[in-house]
This record gives sequence, C-alpha cells and structure tokens, in this order.
Amino acid sequence: MEKTQVEVPENVIDLGLGHPSLSLLPMDMLKASADKIFQAKDPTFLQYGPDEGGGYFRHMLSGWLSEKNRAFIAPESLFITNGISLGLDLVCTCVSRPGDTVIIEEPTYFYVYEIFKNHHLNIVSVPVDREGMVVEKLEHILKEVKPSFIYTIPFFHNPSSVSLSGNRMDQLFSLCRKHDALIVSDEAYQFLNFSPQFPVSLAIRGMGNKILSLGSFSKILAPGLRLGWIHSTPDLIKKIAGTGFVKSGGGLNPFTGRIVGAFMKNGSQDTHLASLKETYRKRAERMLAALKTCLPSDFEYAEPSGGFFVWIRMPEERDARDLLCKCEANGIKFKPGYLFSETGALHNFIRLSFSYYKEDRLSEGIERLAKVL
Amino acid sequence: MEKTQVEVPENVIDLGLGHPSLSLLPMDMLKASADKIFQAKDPTFLQYGPDEGGGYFRHMLSGWLSEKNRAFIAPESLFITNGISLGLDLVCTCVSRPGDTVIIEEPTYFYVYEIFKNHHLNIVSVPVDREGMVVEKLEHILKEVKPSFIYTIPFFHNPSSVSLSGNRMDQLFSLCRKHDALIVSDEAYQFLNFSPQFPVSLAIRGMGNKILSLGSFSKILAPGLRLGWIHSTPDLIKKIAGTGFVKSGGGLNPFTGRIVGAFMKNGSQDTHLASLKETYRKRAERMLAALKTCLPSDFEYAEPSGGFFVWIRMPEERDARDLLCKCEANGIKFKPGYLFSETGALHNFIRLSFSYYKEDRLSEGIERLAKVL
Repeated sequence: MEKTQVEVPENVIDLGLGHPSLSLLPMDMLKASADKIFQAKDPTFLQYGPDEGGGYFRHMLSGWLSEKNRAFIAPESLFITNGISLGLDLVCTCVSRPGDTVIIEEPTYFYVYEIFKNHHLNIVSVPVDREGMVVEKLEHILKEVKPSFIYTIPFFHNPSSVSLSGNRMDQLFSLCRKHDALIVSDEAYQFLNFSPQFPVSLAIRGMGNKILSLGSFSKILAPGLRLGWIHSTPDLIKKIAGTGFVKSGGGLNPFTGRIVGAFMKNGSQDTHLASLKETYRKRAERMLAALKTCLPSDFEYAEPSGGFFVWIRMPEERDARDLLCKCEANGIKFKPGYLFSETGALHNFIRLSFSYYKEDRLSEGIERLAKVL
Repeated sequence: MEKTQVEVPENVIDLGLGHPSLSLLPMDMLKASADKIFQAKDPTFLQYGPDEGGGYFRHMLSGWLSEKNRAFIAPESLFITNGISLGLDLVCTCVSRPGDTVIIEEPTYFYVYEIFKNHHLNIVSVPVDREGMVVEKLEHILKEVKPSFIYTIPFFHNPSSVSLSGNRMDQLFSLCRKHDALIVSDEAYQFLNFSPQFPVSLAIRGMGNKILSLGSFSKILAPGLRLGWIHSTPDLIKKIAGTGFVKSGGGLNPFTGRIVGAFMKNGSQDTHLASLKETYRKRAERMLAALKTCLPSDFEYAEPSGGFFVWIRMPEERDARDLLCKCEANGIKFKPGYLFSETGALHNFIRLSFSYYKEDRLSEGIERLAKVL
C-alpha cells in the first residue's frame, strides 16, 4: 500500500487524525462511475473545461445540493474547486489585498492560519462558545476594522464540534449587512449531521448578505479526489472564475468532476453518505461512552451532533502539550488545543477525532489516554 | 457532448486555440490505466496524500523524466501540481511578496499577466528574438531591480515558438548566479520537439542555479486531468510543499496522479507521445506549406521545431486587431499579438496554432486568412 499524508505506526492510536478510514473510501462505487464516464465516449472531460467547472457536474451538483438544502441552488451560483483548502487560497487571492485583516474564530481549523499568512493577511479572532461564534465580540471588532472577510465554520465546527445557533446566525447576518462584510463559510462537515436536523448552507440562509459557502467531497466521499465547490451569488462566482490561474487552466478539476457527477447521478453519493453518517454516529457514540467512563469529572465537553470531533476542556492547570508527551510514550495521540489558536492559547484543550478508527480501537484509545491522565 | 472551455461554431476555424483536438485525447488508454488502479485494491489514492505528491506517481515520474532528460531526477526533487497555471500561482504565493517585481519575456503567454497581477507583482519585460530571451537586456534590468523571479518559456515558446539557444542559456545561468536570481521555467512544450534534438529541462542544465522547472501533462496527455510537476532542488521543493493550502489538502492531485502513474508504467505515455509528436509535426508542416503559398512575402515567421505555434510578424503598418475583425466576419480567428504584450504592443503580430485542427482544416483556415489580407 502507498503512503498517505500521515502514516501511523500499528502500535499507535492517533485520535488527532481528522481523516476517514481507508475502509470508508468507496473504491468499487467510484470505479463504476469512472467506467460509466469512460464508456460514454465523450472525451470533453479530458479537455480544458469551462472556467467555473464542467456543465454536467455543476448541473448534478446543483440538483444534489438543492435537494439536500431544500432550496434551489442554480448551477450559475456554483464554482468548482479542488477542495476547500485551495478554495480558501483562491478566495484570499480574489477578495483580499496584502495587509488586509481577516476575522476568524478561536479556536479554528489550524491550517487556515498558514493559508491566510501566505497571503500576508492580519488575523483577528473572535471566540467560539457552545452556540458558535460569539457575534457580540465580532460587533466590537467591526467597529474598528474593515475586514476582507469573516471566516467561520458554522456546522460541526473544527475543532469544537458546535454549530452556530439560529439566533447567532441572525445576529451575524444582520451585523454583516450593516458593515457590508463578506462571510466565508467553511462547510466541510455540513452533511455529517447525526440527528435528522440538517443544517442548511449559510449562502442560502443568509440571502441578501455577501456569503461564500465552501463545500467539499473530502468528508463525504474521498479527500484524494480534491473536489469541492463555492456557492454564492452569480456575480461573486463570476469574479472567482475570472482569476488568472483558473482561466489559464480551464477550470480546476474537469476530469474528477465528471466522475463524481456520475456518482451523484446513480445515487451512489446518497447511499454512501447514509452509510457514512451511520458509521460516524456509531463511532461518536462509542467514543463518548468511553469518555464518560474514563475521564475525570472535571473534564468538560459537548456531545457532538455531527462532524468528526470531540473538543475537551481540561481543568485550567492541565497542559495539553505535557499530556501529549506522556501520551506519545503510551501509544496514543491527539491534537493539543494550542494548534487551534493563533496566539498558542487554549493550552488546556484537546481535540479528539472519531473519524479514522473503528469502535473498539476508539475505546482502546480513550483507555490509553485515561491511563496517563 | 459537454461544453469545453472554448466552443467554436462549426463554420468557424479558430487558429487561436492552443488546445489539443478532442480526438487526440487517449480515452481508451486512460481507461485501461484507471481500471488497473481501481483493481489494485489500494484505496490510498482516495485518501489525503503526501504534501509533495503521491509516492508511486513521483517514482514513476522520476523514472520517466530521467529517461527523457538523460539525467537522474530524484523523486525528492519533484512536487506534483494541478498543472503549470496553478503551479505558477503557487510559486507566486511561495517566493514573492506583494509589490515585488517579476521579469517576464515579451511576448509571453497571455494569462501570466493576470496570474502575476493577482499577486500584486510589478512586471518588467525583456524582449525575445530568434534565440529566445535577449539576456543582454535582462542584464541591464538586473542592475536596477532585484526580482522575485525571472519567468521564461525556454522551449517552443508561446507564442513565438523559438527555443533558448545554448549560448543564451549559458549567459542566463551565469547572470542569474551573479545576481542570485531565481528562474521560473515554464516547460509546457518541452516534450513536443519535432526534430530528434530533445531540449533538456532548465533545472538540469542549470545545476548550481536556483531554478524551478514547471512541467505538465496538459500538452502531452490531457488538459482536463490538471496534472503537472515542479522540478527543482529538494530544499525548494520542500518549501513549496509547505504552503498552507497544500498541506491542508494533502497534496494537489493524489487521485489523478496515481492513474497517470499507471499510464506511464505500462508505456502508454510513450506510445501516445510518439503519436502526438508525429501528428503535430504533420499539422505544422501543412500549416507552413499553406502559409508559404498564401501569405504575402513581407510576412515573416520562423518555422517551429516543436510546440503548438507559428508566430507571424506582419509589416509595421498592419494591425492585428483590424485584421481579426475582418477575419471573424469570414469564419477565421487567431490570437492578435497585443495579447502577448503587457503594454498592448506587438500590434503587427499574430499567433496561429496548429494543435487543434486536422491538416485539411488548417489549409482551409490559412486560405480564409489570406483572402482578407
């Protein structure tokens, strides 16, 4: 077997890894879709494609997203990306100038610090609580600063697993309209809800606001495809599609997009997603059960209602860095909180992921963790 | 059939189009490689991959490039991209700061203006003559300016079809060593030589210089795959692989890379390339024969020894913009020279491409062009 981004030795359980298990990647179903596309004898998916993404794929994606979000999403409001990471880089190129400020959440997905710094942007952060971004704090900041955009992870947040509440969302929209501020919404985990309540995309909920909602097939199909989308108003989509390297390359992923279009069309995406959600729900349950048994009572965490993560607050005097050292010597790993803070704060938090391992391994991981606490 | 980036009406011959014909995209051979990879039961190409690109693909590419260039190119000196366009955008992010200067050729590939302007770079241009970049002019500029990098298309240049001569190359290397200047070499057409003389990559020829050679499968296999590479020293490759969005996404194209790795391994890439070169050579011959018959004697052009293009200099009093208007009314198109100049100069040049149409259609195109001259 080939190496992947992170190779974990057999005797280590890495609960820091926010990847799907290899066994959750639907090889056979994808092969069937690839076969179908190759047999269709239309080689246009090998040619320079439309800048905004292939017509067939945008059409299929439009239908699929419309059904899920229960609102019509026109193909013209979709731009096809190589996943959210490149989408964010592209957004920086399109809507920010070096020296601008972006407002992010604390905690937030750790790689965005580097993405934004690559574009010479200043970073100001707003705290997250159990209802998501604390919009009241954002309001204070917007009085002082005119940001390029506000970056948020509204659903099953990475790392904190919370979702933005309805009230907070309304406050956010109203505040951003007042300040004419652009919202960049990272919706990587949108489709991984465990309860029947599906979180509708911000680009739909916030009609009348300037919002770019970034979605991806990485968590619901396969990260290696590097395929995602930006959903926004047609004028913003056109602006993004007009970026130099996008036009020069003829769209970002014509080949993979066509295959995944067929994957959606024959129902494989729905079948696979239903199975994934069930798998992740069970894994989350098992992790929570183990945490309940093993963790000291002064460790706090919210039960995730979707996504990949459990975010644990340890007592103030604990330090995740020290704990990680002890853990590593005992064959267990996690992501320490300071990674998710621009200033290296959040020393007493840890992020656990239940996406990569099967139930028994998750229990074993939590037991190993508990032993060194 | 799906739409591609540019749709040409049936009654129009667009000699401006630097795309391969749809019939030159090897569907069946690619299907065989995709089958092989899907049947191998190793799903790692669907997972987050190594930041610098998948191990198997880099290994295959290392072997293939080493054989072609007759020099060992280690996998560690290769970074896998989504093609040269995104590679250039990434290079700007990695090695330049906003407000920096890049030195380019005039004429040069038209989309790079936008790519560099997206990164807020100042552009200074150096002329190109029949031996490639006029290095003497570059020398004057380097006395005044410390550029982020020097962008060149050394082989079968777009649009001028010239290649950098050995003498000029030596001058360029010596000058750039003196000024510690980075060369970014766009080698999109490297493998499309019509004569047996194969142009060895700048990253090999210029050992001891700082060079990033950017290569691509767009012109030798299929643009829709969005797959290419950067060849440089391992330290520069590491720097590029350390960019935020690259690490966040787990490499740029694990899925497509694995399939193309199999395509190289079973010899399909060599078979296809040999056939492509023969096709393009014949198309170029036919276009040149038609030009010889149809063009006024005061129109000048060099016969291309590779690549996609014929670059024609018309008499000074001619204007390509006016000509294009007349042409379009007669069902024929080309790319006017001013597109390839930052200042909109080169008004009396036109670029013709022989990559997209079969011989008879090329002859017909040139006849249509001649009629309106």
